Amino acid sequence: MSVRVGILGCGNVGSSLVELIDSGGPEIEERTGVSLQVAKIAVRNLAAHQGAITEKYSFTADPYEVVEDPDIDVIVEVIGGIEPARDLILKALKLGKPVVTANKELLASTWSELFEAALSSGVDLLYEASVAGAVPLVRSLRESLPGDRIVRIMGIVNGTTNFILTKMSEEGATYADALAEAQELGFAEANPTADVGGFDAAAKAAIVATIAFGCEVTASDVYTEGISALTADDILMAAKLGYVVKLLAVAERSPEAGPVAVHVHPAMVPVGHPLAGVRGSFNAVFIEGEAIGDMMLYGRGAGGMPTAAAVLGDLIDAAHNLKSGGIGRVSVPPKAQIRPMDELVTQYFVSMDVIDEPGVLADVAAAFGKHGVSIRSMEQLGRESEAHLIFLTHIARERDVQATCEELRSLPSVESVGNLIRVIGGEG
Amino acid sequence: MSVRVGILGCGNVGSSLVELIDSGGPEIEERTGVSLQVAKIAVRNLAAHQGAITEKYSFTADPYEVVEDPDIDVIVEVIGGIEPARDLILKALKLGKPVVTANKELLASTWSELFEAALSSGVDLLYEASVAGAVPLVRSLRESLPGDRIVRIMGIVNGTTNFILTKMSEEGATYADALAEAQELGFAEANPTADVGGFDAAAKAAIVATIAFGCEVTASDVYTEGISALTADDILMAAKLGYVVKLLAVAERSPEAGPVAVHVHPAMVPVGHPLAGVRGSFNAVFIEGEAIGDMMLYGRGAGGMPTAAAVLGDLIDAAHNLKSGGIGRVSVPPKAQIRPMDELVTQYFVSMDVIDEPGVLADVAAAFGKHGVSIRSMEQLGRESEAHLIFLTHIARERDVQATCEELRSLPSVESVGNLIRVIGGEG
Repeated sequence: MSVRVGILGCGNVGSSLVELIDSGGPEIEERTGVSLQVAKIAVRNLAAHQGAITEKYSFTADPYEVVEDPDIDVIVEVIGGIEPARDLILKALKLGKPVVTANKELLASTWSELFEAALSSGVDLLYEASVAGAVPLVRSLRESLPGDRIVRIMGIVNGTTNFILTKMSEEGATYADALAEAQELGFAEANPTADVGGFDAAAKAAIVATIAFGCEVTASDVYTEGISALTADDILMAAKLGYVVKLLAVAERSPEAGPVAVHVHPAMVPVGHPLAGVRGSFNAVFIEGEAIGDMMLYGRGAGGMPTAAAVLGDLIDAAHNLKSGGIGRVSVPPKAQIRPMDELVTQYFVSMDVIDEPGVLADVAAAFGKHGVSIRSMEQLGRESEAHLIFLTHIARERDVQATCEELRSLPSVESVGNLIRVIGGEG
Repeated sequence: MSVRVGILGCGNVGSSLVELIDSGGPEIEERTGVSLQVAKIAVRNLAAHQGAITEKYSFTADPYEVVEDPDIDVIVEVIGGIEPARDLILKALKLGKPVVTANKELLASTWSELFEAALSSGVDLLYEASVAGAVPLVRSLRESLPGDRIVRIMGIVNGTTNFILTKMSEEGATYADALAEAQELGFAEANPTADVGGFDAAAKAAIVATIAFGCEVTASDVYTEGISALTADDILMAAKLGYVVKLLAVAERSPEAGPVAVHVHPAMVPVGHPLAGVRGSFNAVFIEGEAIGDMMLYGRGAGGMPTAAAVLGDLIDAAHNLKSGGIGRVSVPPKAQIRPMDELVTQYFVSMDVIDEPGVLADVAAAFGKHGVSIRSMEQLGRESEAHLIFLTHIARERDVQATCEELRSLPSVESVGNLIRVIGGEG
């Protein structure tokens, strides 16, 4: 059976996908019984696409021409962004065509609308490539683990920030230098906000939480903090205490199917934790389930070929389902009940510069005590007339720790309070 | 839609599965639209099963009563072993019932017969739990990665041996002591041969190679060496050179869809490799693909609950397909062309005791040179009148290294040649 594929977008991922189908077609057919034909490719600017690929395949500047072509069976959307991707996908689904997309931004904002359309047409909407590239996270959560109760998921899902943090922690680089190097090597964009601000990770966290907990989480539900305020000192102090700093996307659910908390922020991970060893631009997702215990999936989270391989897996799935007359798991989950960030319970790292004089530590300790935050360890690093204090708390509630920091800032002996870094995978 | 499940076997995995369905049923139904009912459970010895579970569910000592019951829609086989499991599964498939099995031994010996039966009845035969327990390896290889060309897979797929090797390398335990501790803790059986001899890993390697390369590999095609000859010295020397010793299952394919090589043996893995950090009874599988690059899946490879969670994922899949009228990926691949072990090309660790006198090293080096095996590093550890030599070769061909060892054993100055340990994930 031959399946005709229409591709929207032919950038890094789209062109890699065409290459994979081109070179692997006969092997794919032999192994899966599915023959994929690239029928038409839509690009914004025809003039920008020249050479072997445009001679071999049919190109158009009108994506609707691809979506509406009655000879095209399946649509792959790798344009990205909200519009026109949303409208094109909805149209394809309404025409009864399965859609494969890598569009995290869209999924994290309009999940229900898209899946309602897929459900009402009875066709597949697949999105493995939207989170962690080639890492088979989406399919594993959706199909391997739906019988287990997932307690928590912690992911390094943005390669750019992991590259920067690895440089900072292994080479002592400053944030600015590490970012500049990432930009030179093509790991970070000229405008790095989506990555370093945590927004890319937040969209992925929303998608992961939606699948893992079976309730819709959107990017706007995700508490998001980026890495740009982190200092070389923060990383150094974390290392001193036995931790590595990572930008983590964390999704957790309170017991008894209670509310869901989804947050993205720099976190201190104990050096012995499997996530601590994830270096450079690699991604990894650590899953804690009641029955499965601990699990981790690790791999290339970005790049044309790894992402295209994930799209291709979905495409073969969609084609297989067209052939067998089945359909994958399409559902429209209820809206998630979101637990506010200030109810988070974890350990915290707090650092501050204080005036080096008697009685300061007592004032500082009193501020922690007043808000019921118990200190696990304190270290004082003298610096002439002032001192740098670093605290690691026992598990405490976010709102109490925030109130403590507020109070600390108001103390005359405290010059400044540094970044509050949450500890994940430690106590509690 | 309600799906009636018949379960063959109610040991650790079977009873955990019943518990998961029992406690998670309504949640599973809400999230997947599938309602699972445990209709009947077959056990060998009815008297051995008492208490809450037998009061709530219908038990029988005749597994055919379960398979042939017209009210039962899906069969779960968790008896293990070849017969009667084989006959029961074939009968169920012929009756048009999807089967979920965790039976690695059976799959690794009779793949074609089972899948031909599934294919001719047009029903699912699912087996996620047969390799690496809860780790979603099977589904990822079958459904996420079929568009990529897998180059090599290296797995720690036996928790017992990984527990023993971790004890040996982190605590300097001898093999015998580590095995005894594993037995005490229930990680190893009284007769540990299947685990320590590498046979359990070989069956899993055969299944993994079959899915990854789309050609049937049976356990008898797998070159298999266990860990029982490993000494505390081997582990120590490996550590000295920057390696960790793991029992690896390796499946690789020569370029251009050439022959497949599948082998299980102790291997030295560089300490910086993600597999080196897999400790205790955890499993992990490292996958190298042309498009995806490097990927690793890590988790609990054994135990009632993790294995039952994998079975449950398959069961929901089978039920979903019954409901939607589809079918999963069932295929009968051609027989694999197997590359003989002596064509393996990798680095080798060779150790030997020699008489400590002038000219010995020249004789030993000449033996390597004669067979074209290039030495990367040599270290001599003096011991009174004799010396211990350890060599690390550059990449070389297995047959040449074996011939070198043969020659070394015949040298008058060589007292004994130790274990030949292959280095994986290093050069080449």
